[in-house]
Amino acid sequence: MLRFEIKARDAAGRIGKLEVNGKKLETPAIMPVVNPKQLIVEPKDLKKMGFDIIITNSYIIYKDEELRDRALEVGIHKFLDYDGIIEVDSGSFQLMRYGGIEVTNREIIEFQHKIGVDIGTFLDIPTIPDAPREKAEEDLRITLERAKEAEEIKQIAMNATVQGSTFLDLRTYAAEKLSEMNFEIHPIGAVVPLMESYRYKDLVDVVVASKIGLRPDRPVHLFGAGHPMIFALAVAMGIDLFDSASYALYAKDGRYLTPEGTKHLDDIEYFPCSCPVCSKYTPQELREMEKEERAKLLALHNLWVIREELNRVKQAIKEGTLWELVDERSRSHPKLFAAYKRLLEYKDYLEENEPISKSSAFFKVSEEILRTPVVLRAKERAERVKQKFSQTVEHPIFGEIPKYLALTFPFAQSEAEEDFTIPKPSKKDAKLYIKAVAEYQFGENASKAFEDAFVELSRKTGMPRQIKAKGKHLATFRAEDGLLTLGIEGAKRLHQILPYPKMRVVVNADAEPFARKGKSVFAKFVIDADENIRPYDEVLIVNEKDELLATGQTILNGKELRIFKQGVAVKVRRGVES
Amino acid sequence: MLRFEIKARDAAGRIGKLEVNGKKLETPAIMPVVNPKQLIVEPKDLKKMGFDIIITNSYIIYKDEELRDRALEVGIHKFLDYDGIIEVDSGSFQLMRYGGIEVTNREIIEFQHKIGVDIGTFLDIPTIPDAPREKAEEDLRITLERAKEAEEIKQIAMNATVQGSTFLDLRTYAAEKLSEMNFEIHPIGAVVPLMESYRYKDLVDVVVASKIGLRPDRPVHLFGAGHPMIFALAVAMGIDLFDSASYALYAKDGRYLTPEGTKHLDDIEYFPCSCPVCSKYTPQELREMEKEERAKLLALHNLWVIREELNRVKQAIKEGTLWELVDERSRSHPKLFAAYKRLLEYKDYLEENEPISKSSAFFKVSEEILRTPVVLRAKERAERVKQKFSQTVEHPIFGEIPKYLALTFPFAQSEAEEDFTIPKPSKKDAKLYIKAVAEYQFGENASKAFEDAFVELSRKTGMPRQIKAKGKHLATFRAEDGLLTLGIEGAKRLHQILPYPKMRVVVNADAEPFARKGKSVFAKFVIDADENIRPYDEVLIVNEKDELLATGQTILNGKELRIFKQGVAVKVRRGVES
Repeated sequence: MLRFEIKARDAAGRIGKLEVNGKKLETPAIMPVVNPKQLIVEPKDLKKMGFDIIITNSYIIYKDEELRDRALEVGIHKFLDYDGIIEVDSGSFQLMRYGGIEVTNREIIEFQHKIGVDIGTFLDIPTIPDAPREKAEEDLRITLERAKEAEEIKQIAMNATVQGSTFLDLRTYAAEKLSEMNFEIHPIGAVVPLMESYRYKDLVDVVVASKIGLRPDRPVHLFGAGHPMIFALAVAMGIDLFDSASYALYAKDGRYLTPEGTKHLDDIEYFPCSCPVCSKYTPQELREMEKEERAKLLALHNLWVIREELNRVKQAIKEGTLWELVDERSRSHPKLFAAYKRLLEYKDYLEENEPISKSSAFFKVSEEILRTPVVLRAKERAERVKQKFSQTVEHPIFGEIPKYLALTFPFAQSEAEEDFTIPKPSKKDAKLYIKAVAEYQFGENASKAFEDAFVELSRKTGMPRQIKAKGKHLATFRAEDGLLTLGIEGAKRLHQILPYPKMRVVVNADAEPFARKGKSVFAKFVIDADENIRPYDEVLIVNEKDELLATGQTILNGKELRIFKQGVAVKVRRGVES
Repeated sequence: MLRFEIKARDAAGRIGKLEVNGKKLETPAIMPVVNPKQLIVEPKDLKKMGFDIIITNSYIIYKDEELRDRALEVGIHKFLDYDGIIEVDSGSFQLMRYGGIEVTNREIIEFQHKIGVDIGTFLDIPTIPDAPREKAEEDLRITLERAKEAEEIKQIAMNATVQGSTFLDLRTYAAEKLSEMNFEIHPIGAVVPLMESYRYKDLVDVVVASKIGLRPDRPVHLFGAGHPMIFALAVAMGIDLFDSASYALYAKDGRYLTPEGTKHLDDIEYFPCSCPVCSKYTPQELREMEKEERAKLLALHNLWVIREELNRVKQAIKEGTLWELVDERSRSHPKLFAAYKRLLEYKDYLEENEPISKSSAFFKVSEEILRTPVVLRAKERAERVKQKFSQTVEHPIFGEIPKYLALTFPFAQSEAEEDFTIPKPSKKDAKLYIKAVAEYQFGENASKAFEDAFVELSRKTGMPRQIKAKGKHLATFRAEDGLLTLGIEGAKRLHQILPYPKMRVVVNADAEPFARKGKSVFAKFVIDADENIRPYDEVLIVNEKDELLATGQTILNGKELRIFKQGVAVKVRRGVES
């Protein structure tokens, strides 16, 4: 019905591939809100700009006899003249804003199906922030009842929105309950009032409380969030989908979006943008235009800047610099700064999702960034390794670290305020580097696998390269991050040394022959996994009898490995032929 | 020959109007470097993009017989087909890079004049960073000799470049010496090696040491600086002009500029930009192009992003949010973060240039921003006012402040991480607010002017509005920043209370009748001024006998008022008829 898989990740954010009814979408993505009664930008033009998904309101269409008849007759795609993915809201928002609507849950779900939407939404009850506890509970009870009804009758991919007001336990509870049911996407609802009043810190609490309860394999939509100033933070929390009505609403009102906030056209003397609108006109020229033309151009600018900031976020995920972007963006507004610091308090949630390695160096661009999981984890693991490898060097960011970790991410791959030099291994102590890294990367006792290792040093760079023992390949020391990629012999040794379930990804019998041949392991074949596995870890793939089948790199963490049913779970590097 | 005046300012940065040979330029501005031997973008297309000034190298033209003859024949503007301002370098950079050149100071100056450039550069000697002291001194001695020669023979506007390597006293000395001479622009030279090695902290030292020695009324060019990542910081230090060769050089090498740093096209999966290039093509499409076409498009992107970041900086100056932008940008690289913190150590230099009020609220977006001059000054002045007005309120950013300053910039006009409420005045204590603000804004004893004042409170907002005494208008309480604009009676009283030269701007007899009639005072008529005046202060305009002529708002600080000869110095609000 709807497929979703993770292609890349950073912080708790991810680049995903979503597919529904044969139409594809890369996430994080934003769906421009299309008001069927007033098209400021034609949906097909949105598609041309790269918006592969839009959202409209099925309740507005349903309520208007003319629109309803036409939508039923030609279908929503023809109705809007848009061949991308069309999602619809149910009228829940209208319920929150205006108190009541004239349609039942069943009616709106059936209508959504009949007009051929790609992703529907049942009629959940949004509870505004700071509502009385009883109200939030009662609303949630009804929402969950309606979810049950929706689950029974739905024939299309469907949103199940997490509610619970600002009661974090209710958010987690709702998320858990809805995760147990058969839905495809989980929006987080009723957060618009928080965003409108800049309560970003509360937004962080609500989002993380929801994310903690949600299955990790379904996309999460931050309902009503479309301002580029929060994209980086929201994606870092694990948000995959956004929607924006503001591009058009703001435009009508002369408001101009930037990744740092909203400006009014009247206050702009220089456009801080180079989009097709801003590179062609001056602010003064726009001010002098007819209202309608100006609104259209402002809407286009707003869309371009939304697209641009999402691109920036996606590029940061690819580079592994999302925390740096969040840090930078948090300087746009004190409430965003506060929200960033609040997010960093969710240490465990963040650490679980944080990749083991990145393609970019860690940048110390603030004091706050020293509380991101990449730093905390590195320090914690270094502390552990120090017990066995007590020789230390002083690092300008990480303090006293074991000398033999000095080549490894993020210690060597980091940029401090002052330059520092990385000690190079000698032939004599090269093995100690490998052993320390093994303990750091694979956990306690892992160094035992390398007791008799011989380490080749690169003639060109002086850095460790291949690690062998008795003519067999144990591992490769990766030049880019100073971590180890296992050879078959290395994997076998670690498999012997480390007790089950450490480092294991357990696959079923169907996957065994493929894994042994070195083919990638798909998530649907995974039965179990070590919950301490982190994204991009090197893992051991075993069968149910804990026989070693292969070694490779996982894109999922331990929890996700158990849950995901779609996409590649482990890129196998080497299979162990039986 | 060349006119330069200040139109708006923030931090130590300024928006200026530069005019040379009838051609106008708004600063801060960047001049794309045009290589006459290889035009990647046509100069006339640069003009269309909004680049009103370009720079080329007179030595390269001089050295090549064919180019030289043509330039001499048709003049540099026709030669380059560009009708904006053309500045030329002299070959100094080549001297620094390659050790020697084949032209004398006199020859190149005369050549520059003959080919009709708008702004020339004499042949100064750049000394690289960390050179031996003796070398730096000797180079500087020659540079100053050549400056003397240049001064004698020059017939066009001319750069006099500040050298002195990384010896800060030499930089200041060179700046002072050159300021005494008849030049129009002061570049800061030999800083490219600092920027290439990310030594931004040293760059801050060199720039501030130079700025401290330079006359404030001449534009300052950071020679060789053209990366958008340093624009905000550089402008905040007081840089007016930049030049960029990198837009083209980087493009040839597949490098892509962003305000956060440089990326290689090979590493870009999503363009974090909406410029005419990036909104039209994908990174993959660019990679697949012919080398030349790709280089051209990358050069265009680089130019757009340079233009965009300068726009952002100028918009921030207008808004009074330049420090917030510097803070945000300092998160792009640890060395930039370090440089930002270094700049904040130059407290006195920054405070002198910091405006008294801004059109935007102060945003507490970091701990570092609490060390900007707007905060330090507010705290210091509040501390002084507390001696007389001891009732205090707790402010989330500024700590304990006098209760009666709570409506005034930046205390009320600030955004903290948490919301806070501003106490409103009652009819009973409204006068205390005015008196406290008078001490805060005009200095000790200023409150005495308001002893018998009656304060009107706005019926709508409850805020103070007009302040009167005995039927006469003393001052207006500005709703936007809670500071006072003086009426004639208020100005007269302060003139009596505050001893000369406090708050005074002394003008000559020529200006007297105009000032009395309420016309703006131009800088060239100013004879003297209180050195404690700060930008946007409300001041008293007096004649040489210290008779009060008018009151108004100055855009210049005390030091600048004494030196500037161009542009408006004080916007007179009210004149005192004799």
